[in-house]
Amino acid sequence: MSQIERVAIVGGNHGNELTGVHLVKKFQQYPNLIHRASFETLALLGNLKAIEEGKRYIDKDLNRCFTNQGLQNPQLSSYEDTRAKAIQQILQPQNQPSVDVIVDLHSTTANMGLSLIFCDMHPFLLRLGAYLSSTNPMVKVFVNQQSREGGFLRSLCELGFVIEVGAVAQNILNAELFQQTEQLIYGILDYFEAYNQGNIPQKSSTLTFYQYIRTIDYPRSDAYGGLRQRGEIKAMIHPHLQFRDYEPLNPGDPMFITFEGKEIFYEGEFTVYPIFINEAAYYEKGIAMHLSQKQQKIV
Amino acid sequence: MSQIERVAIVGGNHGNELTGVHLVKKFQQYPNLIHRASFETLALLGNLKAIEEGKRYIDKDLNRCFTNQGLQNPQLSSYEDTRAKAIQQILQPQNQPSVDVIVDLHSTTANMGLSLIFCDMHPFLLRLGAYLSSTNPMVKVFVNQQSREGGFLRSLCELGFVIEVGAVAQNILNAELFQQTEQLIYGILDYFEAYNQGNIPQKSSTLTFYQYIRTIDYPRSDAYGGLRQRGEIKAMIHPHLQFRDYEPLNPGDPMFITFEGKEIFYEGEFTVYPIFINEAAYYEKGIAMHLSQKQQKIV
Repeated sequence: MSQIERVAIVGGNHGNELTGVHLVKKFQQYPNLIHRASFETLALLGNLKAIEEGKRYIDKDLNRCFTNQGLQNPQLSSYEDTRAKAIQQILQPQNQPSVDVIVDLHSTTANMGLSLIFCDMHPFLLRLGAYLSSTNPMVKVFVNQQSREGGFLRSLCELGFVIEVGAVAQNILNAELFQQTEQLIYGILDYFEAYNQGNIPQKSSTLTFYQYIRTIDYPRSDAYGGLRQRGEIKAMIHPHLQFRDYEPLNPGDPMFITFEGKEIFYEGEFTVYPIFINEAAYYEKGIAMHLSQKQQKIV
Repeated sequence: MSQIERVAIVGGNHGNELTGVHLVKKFQQYPNLIHRASFETLALLGNLKAIEEGKRYIDKDLNRCFTNQGLQNPQLSSYEDTRAKAIQQILQPQNQPSVDVIVDLHSTTANMGLSLIFCDMHPFLLRLGAYLSSTNPMVKVFVNQQSREGGFLRSLCELGFVIEVGAVAQNILNAELFQQTEQLIYGILDYFEAYNQGNIPQKSSTLTFYQYIRTIDYPRSDAYGGLRQRGEIKAMIHPHLQFRDYEPLNPGDPMFITFEGKEIFYEGEFTVYPIFINEAAYYEKGIAMHLSQKQQKIV
């Protein structure tokens, strides 16, 4: 792989995830913090209007608007479709080099610590993940292989990835997570700098990562007409599972508890590792959690 | 005081506070749970449209719309003004007796446990608070004396009060808090039943309560034009204070930390007890926390 020349750090892709919003504002105010000798770093706010209004999005999820089809369709004119095109112009300007890396900052109500989310097994990203998780036990690596047609901002470039921090409620700042995320970003930039200098901190090591298997929805009543596309939820995340992201869930362990107090158990055949447990924005997407497999790999 | 004849339990006065919403839906589905022999109990959803959309409110905060002036003004026609009038009609129907008690269910991102919020020192409520907090250490009593013209739902009747539970993010359910709130409601209804039977569990006891002193805002930059009415926040709740609601804050203790990492200390002259620390909905209201005094009273 050639040198890294341009890095973009994006906050507020979702407007109510304040950690990234205020980190990017800090980086815009103090550009020296993200300046490194061998590459250029750009700090960019994502969904400006949603940030102003304290919402995830205005008309539709910006982080599903970066499809080739959508970006090339002049008919699409919602705020987010328009903003996605503007962001693409900044990150991939015509007749100028595109960014090599996108670091997309998110936060979650799930207890994800400092999660790196990769959408493929790019060896450079895996080595970065191995290095960062070896220096900080809060760092976890989640690999969720996704088509570039999912419309995610990170899919605009080969080395695009998400930092997902939590647990933190929407529309609040948690100072500890803010500072930990900030340090993680500096660690990432330092790693890129070392790479460019031919001096990466660790040549080979074992990466523990969590690979996406499937999504579990809440138990729901049948859908009915009207505004709501899904049935009403009939159960909550079980107290034994709440905040236990990245911990093993064994066959027979409780997963949900109904409003009436009836427990619902995990009926799979092998141990899995749930993540994104009880993320607020995923109720509407029909996701109570993702299930993952814990894996190791020499990178 | 005469008998309690009608009790209203309201959930979803704020549409993104799901604990109350789903408790009320449960009570509507299983009315026996809130049925007691000596009085009638009504379970009512507050801001229907905001519940449907997963927002605190649509146009304005419903829980500021219950002023006499607003309720009597036919010109006011926002969704919340209209809904406030409809709720008043249900709770105070013409030519029929009004409800005697309103239990208004809220949740918060602050670590408030199970808080009872009273807007005056009504002896009946203080005795109720003393009883409930003596049987469950998670129950705290916060007295925030407020004019009936604040427009709060609870101010529609003498024995109106709020149950505020947390910490829980907006738009999610925490099963443990859901079940604890449910049990607290049954305890309250049982207390009313015992009162009506002349058989209240405890005749006299000492109540520990927290009395509102004042509000502290985040440190902010100067306000500027545009949509935003307040300046941008310059600091976050200090990690030592985060989730420490109802714990003592002494002169010289850290309160905030700026984005640059500078600590800001409490400069008051005596120990106070902060509550509503880092409530998401209060950023826009200019409230980082309330300060209270811890007091005891024989009731």
